[in-house]
Amino acid sequence: MDKHRIRFLPLDITYLAQDGENLLDFAMDVGVHINASCGGNGTCKRCKVRLVEGRVDFCQDQALSVSGHGEDIVLACQTRIKGDAVFEIPLESQIDRSALKSRKSPNILSAPDSLASLGGISPDPVAYKINITLEPPGIDNNMADSERLIRVLKNSHNMGDVKINLNILKRLPSLLRNSGWDVTLTIAETDMGLEITDVQVGNTPKKQYALAIDIGTTTVCGQIIDLWDCSKTGSRVIGESADYNAQISYGDDVITRIMHTRKKGGLKRLQEAVVKTINLIIDELTDKAGIERSFISHMVCAGNTTMTHLLLGVEPRYIMISPYTPAFVFPPVIKGGDIGIKGLDNTPLYLFPCVSSYVGGDIVAGVISSGMAKEGDISLFIDIGTNGEIVLGNKDWLMCASCSAGPAFEGGGISHGMRAAKGAIEQVRINKKTYEPMILTIGHSKPLGICGSGLIDSIAEMLSAGIITENGRFNRELPTDRVREGKDGYEYVLCYGKETQTGRDICLTEIDIDNIMRAKAAMFAGCKVLLDSAGLYFNELKRVIIAGGFGHFLDPSKAQIIGLLPELPLERFVFIGNSSLMGASLFALSREYASEAERVARMMTNIELTNNNRFMEEFMAAMFLPHTDLRLFSKTLGVR
Amino acid sequence: MDKHRIRFLPLDITYLAQDGENLLDFAMDVGVHINASCGGNGTCKRCKVRLVEGRVDFCQDQALSVSGHGEDIVLACQTRIKGDAVFEIPLESQIDRSALKSRKSPNILSAPDSLASLGGISPDPVAYKINITLEPPGIDNNMADSERLIRVLKNSHNMGDVKINLNILKRLPSLLRNSGWDVTLTIAETDMGLEITDVQVGNTPKKQYALAIDIGTTTVCGQIIDLWDCSKTGSRVIGESADYNAQISYGDDVITRIMHTRKKGGLKRLQEAVVKTINLIIDELTDKAGIERSFISHMVCAGNTTMTHLLLGVEPRYIMISPYTPAFVFPPVIKGGDIGIKGLDNTPLYLFPCVSSYVGGDIVAGVISSGMAKEGDISLFIDIGTNGEIVLGNKDWLMCASCSAGPAFEGGGISHGMRAAKGAIEQVRINKKTYEPMILTIGHSKPLGICGSGLIDSIAEMLSAGIITENGRFNRELPTDRVREGKDGYEYVLCYGKETQTGRDICLTEIDIDNIMRAKAAMFAGCKVLLDSAGLYFNELKRVIIAGGFGHFLDPSKAQIIGLLPELPLERFVFIGNSSLMGASLFALSREYASEAERVARMMTNIELTNNNRFMEEFMAAMFLPHTDLRLFSKTLGVR
Repeated sequence: MDKHRIRFLPLDITYLAQDGENLLDFAMDVGVHINASCGGNGTCKRCKVRLVEGRVDFCQDQALSVSGHGEDIVLACQTRIKGDAVFEIPLESQIDRSALKSRKSPNILSAPDSLASLGGISPDPVAYKINITLEPPGIDNNMADSERLIRVLKNSHNMGDVKINLNILKRLPSLLRNSGWDVTLTIAETDMGLEITDVQVGNTPKKQYALAIDIGTTTVCGQIIDLWDCSKTGSRVIGESADYNAQISYGDDVITRIMHTRKKGGLKRLQEAVVKTINLIIDELTDKAGIERSFISHMVCAGNTTMTHLLLGVEPRYIMISPYTPAFVFPPVIKGGDIGIKGLDNTPLYLFPCVSSYVGGDIVAGVISSGMAKEGDISLFIDIGTNGEIVLGNKDWLMCASCSAGPAFEGGGISHGMRAAKGAIEQVRINKKTYEPMILTIGHSKPLGICGSGLIDSIAEMLSAGIITENGRFNRELPTDRVREGKDGYEYVLCYGKETQTGRDICLTEIDIDNIMRAKAAMFAGCKVLLDSAGLYFNELKRVIIAGGFGHFLDPSKAQIIGLLPELPLERFVFIGNSSLMGASLFALSREYASEAERVARMMTNIELTNNNRFMEEFMAAMFLPHTDLRLFSKTLGVR
Repeated sequence: MDKHRIRFLPLDITYLAQDGENLLDFAMDVGVHINASCGGNGTCKRCKVRLVEGRVDFCQDQALSVSGHGEDIVLACQTRIKGDAVFEIPLESQIDRSALKSRKSPNILSAPDSLASLGGISPDPVAYKINITLEPPGIDNNMADSERLIRVLKNSHNMGDVKINLNILKRLPSLLRNSGWDVTLTIAETDMGLEITDVQVGNTPKKQYALAIDIGTTTVCGQIIDLWDCSKTGSRVIGESADYNAQISYGDDVITRIMHTRKKGGLKRLQEAVVKTINLIIDELTDKAGIERSFISHMVCAGNTTMTHLLLGVEPRYIMISPYTPAFVFPPVIKGGDIGIKGLDNTPLYLFPCVSSYVGGDIVAGVISSGMAKEGDISLFIDIGTNGEIVLGNKDWLMCASCSAGPAFEGGGISHGMRAAKGAIEQVRINKKTYEPMILTIGHSKPLGICGSGLIDSIAEMLSAGIITENGRFNRELPTDRVREGKDGYEYVLCYGKETQTGRDICLTEIDIDNIMRAKAAMFAGCKVLLDSAGLYFNELKRVIIAGGFGHFLDPSKAQIIGLLPELPLERFVFIGNSSLMGASLFALSREYASEAERVARMMTNIELTNNNRFMEEFMAAMFLPHTDLRLFSKTLGVR
């Protein structure tokens, strides 16, 4: 079959493609990232690339889809390769890993110090190492190798029923003899009970590391933990790494990913994609820390329910179909080799239990690391994101819900929205007299778009300056050119094209504002329904814990102005950053947190908000800035 | 590289070979069986083939190895392919599967009827099937699929902690929905505790079959058992099949096989060979019985310790090196897919526990099926073969040993020895006046060689006729041409060349007789040491149970004449045929026998006879026909 030379700019890499291949699929295969929110179905129109040179074929209504962008702009997902070609990937279609790095550390450090460094917690891991010395066999004592091992564990270590799996059994005879009958066992608590998962030559119990991995829909973050030595850095966390989840090429959100599993081979592709990302992160963690993989005794992963299904390769289809039933919430303990983790074939991998289809292991991990389930005081835990999970309760009871806030806070569905990456406008102030804005971007780069915190700031400032009204409409009478009528209706220009990376104006439209209002209304309504169900008022909350990468850059006073967060003294808001990763690290460090994870997951009562009338009422009431019930925001209104 | 056309006669099949390839290796690869006892090292000289046409190269001292057989006879293991060639495989180098079939049934039927048909035993298998109906999920009841299942098992079936493995989890969501929430679970007792190993649509608990497989060093035998219905045939055993263990191409006995594992890839080759044989047997069993593999709920295998190691792919090296330590004796419960059993990937496979390096799971299975470990009376269990395992005891105590009898009873090391296959002389009578023999062969074919029972008959008859003396030497003064001096010393001609398949005389030499005497002396000495250790005399034995394919064709009165079996009334000898297979079937049928297998294996005290002085003394004392201590055989001497 014909092969064609496909060159991508500005990366300037050339690959050979099959004739007729879909351009987006091909880019994914060769590892060139092009944004695609809709999984390649032509609706999100984000996978735009410029055809610099060459010939392509189009699927269906390509011309229609990209109208208004000039003949040379094509949607990669609707384009078939028909000859040699050169494509330029526009700035807004690229993803930039460097942004993850610059933003990661402050998140972690914002957590209580003892938790972040894990320094104050005594290690007591679910997989522990024991050095044992065996009596060598003799003609009067020729018991089998494996029974010899088990007898010592029983007699000298009081471990009654330890299992040896086939992989270990295969290596046992030569290991025992090569070691001179002096070995270090890794014994892990798995679905078999106690199981020997590794046998090492010699005395190595204190050389033990664990991996904690947070599998986000967008980002995968990992930490490597030295279980016994924190003398070097004062922290047990000896390395961190993050990367975009490679599944991102198959869609931005969990729903698009689940849709993709319905395609032939889709589930396998998604599983392989996230495992590829995890393998890269493990490579980076072990390389940087100079740790041999054989000393990693166990791995702990936390992810939302869909990510957990996809990691295990389990059909997630019914998560998105009413009544939203996951295949499982308590995952089996697996081995790295079961899913293709490199070099850790027999290493146990623990996954955080989930609660329901939309309250997953990442939230359980977050609750664990927040400590709220150990306290008598009542806290509200909020993870602002596409699904907007919330948890209310204390050590005795917990209830949770997912609010379907939509992707607005992550830049989705917003004209110039983008993820919190380099060039994203993250802080905004607007002069109340001149209506001129002051903006700050991530990395202080030329502006490229607006991320979640920038959106909240903008709307709060526009509201305070009277640019928009309480129902999110523009005041059309203001003496400023920044408020103007664009092709999608009225808009406010945050940044003119001459200052932006793309050369195009960065604006906020009434549609954008409406999308943000829906998102914040869903979050607030969810919190209100949970509090009402528990018969509580907001002022009875001792803490509002804000989790997630988003949370750290959020200004709670601005969030109160638009009615996203409840009106409480600012000192009650706690930002704990990537609490899912921290929960995974705590699980990896001590079985106390491992069993706490199970206890918490079983204790969390899920309140289904879909088709819930109370939620719909609260949602409608919150579709106002800050809220239709002004008593809820009386102080905020005073300072605005 | 050059390829050569290699044609094998009398099969008349042609395959393409690489230039320089070893002929024996090539024959194995393409599935043409040539006998080889030594694993291909040129010492056993059994892999002779005739070069009919073409060109070959020889390794080292090939010419020397086959001296006396003419230029065209080559040892396959010492021959390299250098061009197109035609080889004829002589009759004595072929193996003939049909012999297995004709001899199999009587073995099975010789067992107590209720055990052989398994009809009198209530099924209570280690893997059982339960039909359950689940409440379909609704918006107020959207518990995860797997937890929904587990809750029903807990609440309605009182099963507290049932595990679901990843393979089942992957299929669960679609299975539950396709079945309309009415499924049949297979729940097996595995190393995880209770584990769901299969989920089937609809109500199928009574469609349940199990496979029982005896993995012999030479032969693999299988049965398929209908666990609930024995109405058709009156037996739960609805099919049987046997085949040579494909490992046979890598050597006749366990030692040669273990030697082969030291070659690169040797362990994997041996594992694949036996799995290939098992797959063929399962194909035949399921095809003939018309059973879908999905209705096979579990498999049970019994084999000696080396076979058990090789099946699991576990290093057996230290089994043959003093102090003879196996890697394990209690095997893990595995899944068919772990070792490559086709179409039964997630089906649990149970292996009988072993006792020591040379008392394996086949013996434990034999003891189970003999019932000796449930009785107050004391029995002696004997499996006559290369390793000659013996077990002594009753319900309260058991001791066992392996006697290293050598391969003589299987035809090994005997000039015209062969396995019990078509054309083997199996019964012999000698006229005490004329010294002329009367012989019977298996299948009544032209004689090809002598098998174990023929050897015992011959020696007993020669001794009774005065052809040989009590120390196994020929009486050189007899008026018969049948006793003559051959190239290996004196010999007795059982059959002249004009009547044999090969055209060569079939003789028994003094060296052959010496080999048989060593074998019988080892067996008897082993029994004597066990009885002495227990402070027992032979006449205190209520039963002598003779197991193994060999046993069924053995005439115990002849065996007493040569001193192989102790002098006891003939009615105390019980032949139970392939008791290993029967034990496996019992295990498959009921967990009572499964736990009995573990109890028996733990109870059996292994007496190591290697380097055992008592054994050496008894062995020397038994190197006489019947024995140097004539008091042990006073009655036998009277009737002889």
